Amino acid sequence: MAANDDIYYREGIPVPETPVGEDAPSFWKKTDVVGKPLPRVDGYERVSGTAQYPSDILLPGMLYGAILRSPHPHARVKKIDVSEAEKMEGVRAVLTGESREAKDIKWKYQDRQVPLFDPHCRFEGEIVAAVAADTWYQASDAARAIQVEYEILSFVVDHEKSLDEGAVRIGREGNLLEEEEYSRGEVERGFSEADVVLEQSYRTSVELHTPLELHGCVANWDRDRLTIWESSQGVYAVQSRIAEALGLPLSKIRVSNQYMGGGFGSKLKPGKYTAVCALLAKKCSRPVKMLLSREETFLCVGNRPANSMRLKAGAKKDGTITAFDFECSGPSGAYPAGGVQLVDWLIRDLYLCDNVRTISRDVLINAGPARPFRAPGHPQGAWALEQMMDELADKLGMDPVEFRLRNIPQKSQAREDKPYTTDGLRQCLERGAEEFQWQEALQQAREYNEGNEYIKRGVGAGACLWIAGDGGPPSTVILKLFKDGSVNLNMGASDIGTGTKTVMAQVAAEELGVHPSIIQIEYADTATTQFATPSGGSKTVPTEAPTVRNAAIALKQELKRMAAEDLGVEVEQLKYIGDEIVSGNDSSKKVKIKEISGLKKRGEVIGVGYRGPNIEDKVINPFAAQFCELEVNLRTGEVKLLRFLGAHDSGRVLNRATFDNQVYGGIVMGIGFALTEFRQLDENQTGKLCNRNWHDYKLPTALDVPLKTVSVAIEIDDPEANNTGAKGLGEPVTIPTGAVIANALYMATGIRFTKSPVLPMDIIRELSKKTKG
Amino acid sequence: MAANDDIYYREGIPVPETPVGEDAPSFWKKTDVVGKPLPRVDGYERVSGTAQYPSDILLPGMLYGAILRSPHPHARVKKIDVSEAEKMEGVRAVLTGESREAKDIKWKYQDRQVPLFDPHCRFEGEIVAAVAADTWYQASDAARAIQVEYEILSFVVDHEKSLDEGAVRIGREGNLLEEEEYSRGEVERGFSEADVVLEQSYRTSVELHTPLELHGCVANWDRDRLTIWESSQGVYAVQSRIAEALGLPLSKIRVSNQYMGGGFGSKLKPGKYTAVCALLAKKCSRPVKMLLSREETFLCVGNRPANSMRLKAGAKKDGTITAFDFECSGPSGAYPAGGVQLVDWLIRDLYLCDNVRTISRDVLINAGPARPFRAPGHPQGAWALEQMMDELADKLGMDPVEFRLRNIPQKSQAREDKPYTTDGLRQCLERGAEEFQWQEALQQAREYNEGNEYIKRGVGAGACLWIAGDGGPPSTVILKLFKDGSVNLNMGASDIGTGTKTVMAQVAAEELGVHPSIIQIEYADTATTQFATPSGGSKTVPTEAPTVRNAAIALKQELKRMAAEDLGVEVEQLKYIGDEIVSGNDSSKKVKIKEISGLKKRGEVIGVGYRGPNIEDKVINPFAAQFCELEVNLRTGEVKLLRFLGAHDSGRVLNRATFDNQVYGGIVMGIGFALTEFRQLDENQTGKLCNRNWHDYKLPTALDVPLKTVSVAIEIDDPEANNTGAKGLGEPVTIPTGAVIANALYMATGIRFTKSPVLPMDIIRELSKKTKG
Repeated sequence: MAANDDIYYREGIPVPETPVGEDAPSFWKKTDVVGKPLPRVDGYERVSGTAQYPSDILLPGMLYGAILRSPHPHARVKKIDVSEAEKMEGVRAVLTGESREAKDIKWKYQDRQVPLFDPHCRFEGEIVAAVAADTWYQASDAARAIQVEYEILSFVVDHEKSLDEGAVRIGREGNLLEEEEYSRGEVERGFSEADVVLEQSYRTSVELHTPLELHGCVANWDRDRLTIWESSQGVYAVQSRIAEALGLPLSKIRVSNQYMGGGFGSKLKPGKYTAVCALLAKKCSRPVKMLLSREETFLCVGNRPANSMRLKAGAKKDGTITAFDFECSGPSGAYPAGGVQLVDWLIRDLYLCDNVRTISRDVLINAGPARPFRAPGHPQGAWALEQMMDELADKLGMDPVEFRLRNIPQKSQAREDKPYTTDGLRQCLERGAEEFQWQEALQQAREYNEGNEYIKRGVGAGACLWIAGDGGPPSTVILKLFKDGSVNLNMGASDIGTGTKTVMAQVAAEELGVHPSIIQIEYADTATTQFATPSGGSKTVPTEAPTVRNAAIALKQELKRMAAEDLGVEVEQLKYIGDEIVSGNDSSKKVKIKEISGLKKRGEVIGVGYRGPNIEDKVINPFAAQFCELEVNLRTGEVKLLRFLGAHDSGRVLNRATFDNQVYGGIVMGIGFALTEFRQLDENQTGKLCNRNWHDYKLPTALDVPLKTVSVAIEIDDPEANNTGAKGLGEPVTIPTGAVIANALYMATGIRFTKSPVLPMDIIRELSKKTKG
Repeated sequence: MAANDDIYYREGIPVPETPVGEDAPSFWKKTDVVGKPLPRVDGYERVSGTAQYPSDILLPGMLYGAILRSPHPHARVKKIDVSEAEKMEGVRAVLTGESREAKDIKWKYQDRQVPLFDPHCRFEGEIVAAVAADTWYQASDAARAIQVEYEILSFVVDHEKSLDEGAVRIGREGNLLEEEEYSRGEVERGFSEADVVLEQSYRTSVELHTPLELHGCVANWDRDRLTIWESSQGVYAVQSRIAEALGLPLSKIRVSNQYMGGGFGSKLKPGKYTAVCALLAKKCSRPVKMLLSREETFLCVGNRPANSMRLKAGAKKDGTITAFDFECSGPSGAYPAGGVQLVDWLIRDLYLCDNVRTISRDVLINAGPARPFRAPGHPQGAWALEQMMDELADKLGMDPVEFRLRNIPQKSQAREDKPYTTDGLRQCLERGAEEFQWQEALQQAREYNEGNEYIKRGVGAGACLWIAGDGGPPSTVILKLFKDGSVNLNMGASDIGTGTKTVMAQVAAEELGVHPSIIQIEYADTATTQFATPSGGSKTVPTEAPTVRNAAIALKQELKRMAAEDLGVEVEQLKYIGDEIVSGNDSSKKVKIKEISGLKKRGEVIGVGYRGPNIEDKVINPFAAQFCELEVNLRTGEVKLLRFLGAHDSGRVLNRATFDNQVYGGIVMGIGFALTEFRQLDENQTGKLCNRNWHDYKLPTALDVPLKTVSVAIEIDDPEANNTGAKGLGEPVTIPTGAVIANALYMATGIRFTKSPVLPMDIIRELSKKTKG
């Protein structure tokens, strides 16, 4: 075993020197590790099964928790009888709103505070009682044995009907949570200058968060100290929410989450179930594991709200867009949760337009609260805007890609006209169209359609930006150099399956000149790792990567300071070269990293990195353009996706494999949005969820995705983004996908599908209307 | 739950300002937390059983390991047949020196490198083979089923016989490992100036390390990453030894040890068994738990070597000591391990003497290697020196305490005559004698003895210093302030049962002005906590406490820097006051800690503390004096300890309860050394261990310790020691105890017992000799 001698991956080859400090503007000119498709550093654990997810936590004496949930979308608990449940075998504790442990505990939905066990159940799935027992089956059976007397109230589950006169009132101040208006320029003047004015209504459906790993946690108390293992996107967020709910200092709550199987926004915060699990554990003085069922997650952990949108747009013959007038509404669910959050953002900011007005109405309905869902609001807004762009191009007789290129802004019109750091939107559209062979594809589809009666082809294009892919503070990372030169990386951020650990190891390895494989990574634990915001919003890479690099720079600087003492020279003349530090003035003056006496004396050397603030006078955004080709079977309504291409400017690609995987995954999710996924509530009779499982709620499967999906990285030097040049990717990959499919469907069928998802029966119905018409 | 509002334990009461920096000489003038007998912060976990010791680790699929050990003290393995063992139920792996996983693995004893599975077995208990199986019983049975053919070699197990002409050769270069000589002045001249010259031989027995918790570990691999839970005094020491043995980078080995049940020096390093356990786990690709039996620990984890000593001393009538001539030998065991380490230190350094010569001979024998044992060498040296001091006093007609007080040095004669930072030795003797009522006790014992024929009383005194109680670098500690003002303490040091966590929480709480209860402590984990040397040598408190304080000072300074930004004032004028930071110039300018915008922006604020170097021109030592009163039954030889008093200058007492507990515990251990504990090898016939369990190897029990034991803290302001003023206590408490008992025995019986332990039959034998004589 050669061991420690091959820690350094390039003996003697200089690492480019970089200025020290958070705002170092320079780039690695040439990289050895960054950008490479390095396999996951934790691939072995994930594949072998040794990776520990919350569901893998097994503690001595551990109990299992189950929750009794309201079966009604709107009801009031009048009486609870737990006597039968308490007598059942294996049952250790039953909690209701009247239990001593629970009665004073509140839960917050934004500014609304409600009881943890709320007798006023405003959605199907609201928590009514909970049980801890020796086995999950016992807990579950006991929960069902609890007798609850409900006063059943009338309900409303459609956001469009929620504001009707006679609709039942869900919140204290009625069902309209917020109405937000935005405007710039004069919309009416814009329309009067237009040669073409179009208006169209759109409606998207509720998509449910269904990450492969279910939601759940394990809670354990040591006297007044609580440890929670939660499947979470951010341990510090869980810590602060639970501390607030239970009234504990942060130092008394340890939240840990080594592995988790996806969240997509639904695990940015803990759920009520987390607090319930902690209270059960407290009542029993034993650890309690609580894993929600798929059905429970469908009811209560979050969703992408449905949006009703109306978009009116005007354009001149030369392709200038003169006005957008946009209105949208959407349901937060039973509590404030951002029912229209960011739905209008692309209308405000994606294309050049002087006159824009948007109105957004967030309303309450009797259904589980929404949560951010991979690019909150953006796919819905794109569904409207990117279809409208196609319609306008069509009416103007312009190529839709060309029409978009005419309207590329160099600045963020919605953010004080600050310039963008890159011209990424243009480059994504141009390079994407080129790689996709857009013109040829259009032509070939037309020719194909002429020769085929029932199978019709279409191609579609669309673009986007994502508001939050710049990342930013806060973030703290500590790099520790062991005595032998191997490295420990300490970071509070979660790796939600996207490869964060791998990418951060690459960044540290690049800067320090060591093998990524010898970097030990500790992460996502409030007790042992540094503060980080939840992994979400496509901000983990642009937030954490610069912090890791800053920590490495700080570590190198500390080593240089120590080497300067050893060598009796000024720090400034020293260069850090992979495994040693050398004087730039006299190359005979050098010291091996491992031999630096300060390292030997301290036993370790650490470098602390902080995320510096972003540039203030510019806007850092990731951009994207996507293209697809599909076939529609006019007799069955079946849609077959032939190929997809995503061209993405997310700045520097830190790992080509994780980059491509994000693009593929985002497109698959967008396919679900466009063609298969919707929450079906029984609007008229019961208000209850109809599709409560993966059989009835259809996610795209391997058979539903195109065999050919191409990821094109538009790597533009973006030195102003941060000191790694990387921007976010997780959200933009799924934003335009739905609209791109709708645009291709239009070409194939001549029908503008404004409601998502577009099911085969929708296609057949519309085709038959068209034939009749 | 009032929660976060009571984090600060003194609202508005100023914490004394302290200069920032490692070498801050000032003290806390008045303390709120430090010094108080705070109960253990982890008392709940320890008492409730939730504390996780290595033996509590349970991993899915975990196997159990067992070791086959050489039954002979000296033999050569000629042939091993594992075929029967491999076929046994539950057996998953058998390892021998020929196994692929093991054959290249070496183990180091100081400078000697030997095979991990060494066919040349030099002591009873040497590892020959190992088994992993589904249960411990299966593993153990299989180990016994391995057929080994040995060539049995002749042996030597007494260090005095080991250097004899015909003795079998154990090491390559013979059995004399090292002969070290020290001298100052001219010993012969010293004796010629003396009025009294005495010479005496002493012999102490081997004491075995028998901490309540057995030695053991759990090892688990994730591909090439190894995690070890080891009952250890220092996780970083385990990490580096195992990394070296297995040829792994440090970052690939995580060593963790949350709780452990005592080590006393034997757990400063891992054992061969740790590496064997790791290799078994590797071979099986499953976690393996290996807990040694008590018998195994008796054979192989360490011991206090037996020492043969000859001390010749001269003194003038006025009590001036003129010369010490000291010779000692002792066995390292089968490998170099410090058989005479520090045995001569007290002769060199405890009392004023211009002419000193010492010779120390470390030899090999066929027995398990020694390890540092609570005050290496010192109790043995004290056994000789402190009895000799009594004899001299007796011959000179002086009170033995008075005689010692005449010879108190103000400087370390063995360390370049550097002055001590305190006059602790004098104060311990004076205050101890006063508190013990030494003169009255002497008088009362004499009177008692006159009135009693068979029960005789004696009082005895003795003193010591401990060479290494100053602590020192390296150590790194990080304190993290959560957003709500609660605190996380990150420290790599182990709490070996002495209360390190509690004491460090007090130091942090004192400096930060927060409740100790809201300090979350992470410790003793190479992956998540900072570097620390093993907890041992009475250096944990004086090493870690100043580091914790420095981290707190750094944290306060960072908060002040941030507050200065918020308030628009200079940092220098700001004062940190419990829960807020206030301007000294204008008390209206202030900000609550929780409201500091830098804390909010970063999500946390950290302070990094390092242990600064010790003062160079002085010697920092803890000192002690102990006193006892006992009864001897002249008919049975039984000794009954009536009372004990320990007066200890270990600088500032950080926690009075843990301080007292150390004093009591150390005295109990010293009682074992003096009266009950010895390893009995069958010297002539087999060389094997005779007393292999707690029945035959007698530790003092509750019935053997005095009902009245008093701990006197000699708190001398010792600002030069470090910025907490605390020195080590763990070792000095056990150094003079044995000699103090021997001195009291002399008074009671008139017999000088020079061989330890002094058993009832020894007393009877010597009494009968005396009667005959």
